[in-house]
Amino acid sequence: MKNKINFKKKFNLFSDYWTPKVIAEMNNYQFKLVKVKGEFISHKHDHTDEAFIVIDGSLKIEFSNKTINLNSGEMFVVPKGVKHKPYSKEECKILLVEPRETINTGNVQGKYTAPNNQWI
Amino acid sequence: MKNKINFKKKFNLFSDYWTPKVIAEMNNYQFKLVKVKGEFISHKHDHTDEAFIVIDGSLKIEFSNKTINLNSGEMFVVPKGVKHKPYSKEECKILLVEPRETINTGNVQGKYTAPNNQWI
Repeated sequence: MKNKINFKKKFNLFSDYWTPKVIAEMNNYQFKLVKVKGEFISHKHDHTDEAFIVIDGSLKIEFSNKTINLNSGEMFVVPKGVKHKPYSKEECKILLVEPRETINTGNVQGKYTAPNNQWI
Repeated sequence: MKNKINFKKKFNLFSDYWTPKVIAEMNNYQFKLVKVKGEFISHKHDHTDEAFIVIDGSLKIEFSNKTINLNSGEMFVVPKGVKHKPYSKEECKILLVEPRETINTGNVQGKYTAPNNQWI
């Protein structure tokens, strides 16, 4: 069995933005920590929902028809196929839950596309 | 699309122990809040891992060969098939992530077995 995971200690292990780090697996799903700051690209995941949990800070997620504001202790599940654009003025620390093979930029390959399975 | 979820507000909606309340779904998985206090039964889930995230308080999980202590901001994934017994001296608030059909007492039916799909 693995050890327990402490979010703060894990967040202290990296400083790059928009590059999800895997901290745990549950069946074929992964828990990933991400630090974000600034504007991400608009993208969608055609085959899966994606859960965002804000651990520290504040995150905006822009959709075509609305923007939601998530603060620490809040979560949101982006439905599959729905375009979304995360944005955060200040650094924000997030926990993502999604299937193992999920690419961070979904249907859009580009400079923000991060490699999968980066365990910390 | 659903609204965002605030853990504190959701926890304020119930007070019973050991009865998971569903707050969100991601594909066929559910996010469930639970308040726990005292000793639960030892059980296992034969078909799935189970993720525990402590939102507030402190939780012990006893295994056959060790006990782990989870505090606020910590998580642990119990592997499928592994017997575990949650315990908390004081009230502890937990977020569970697991497949929709997962029964809280796993392979053991009894007085602690709670109905599934109790949305709040």
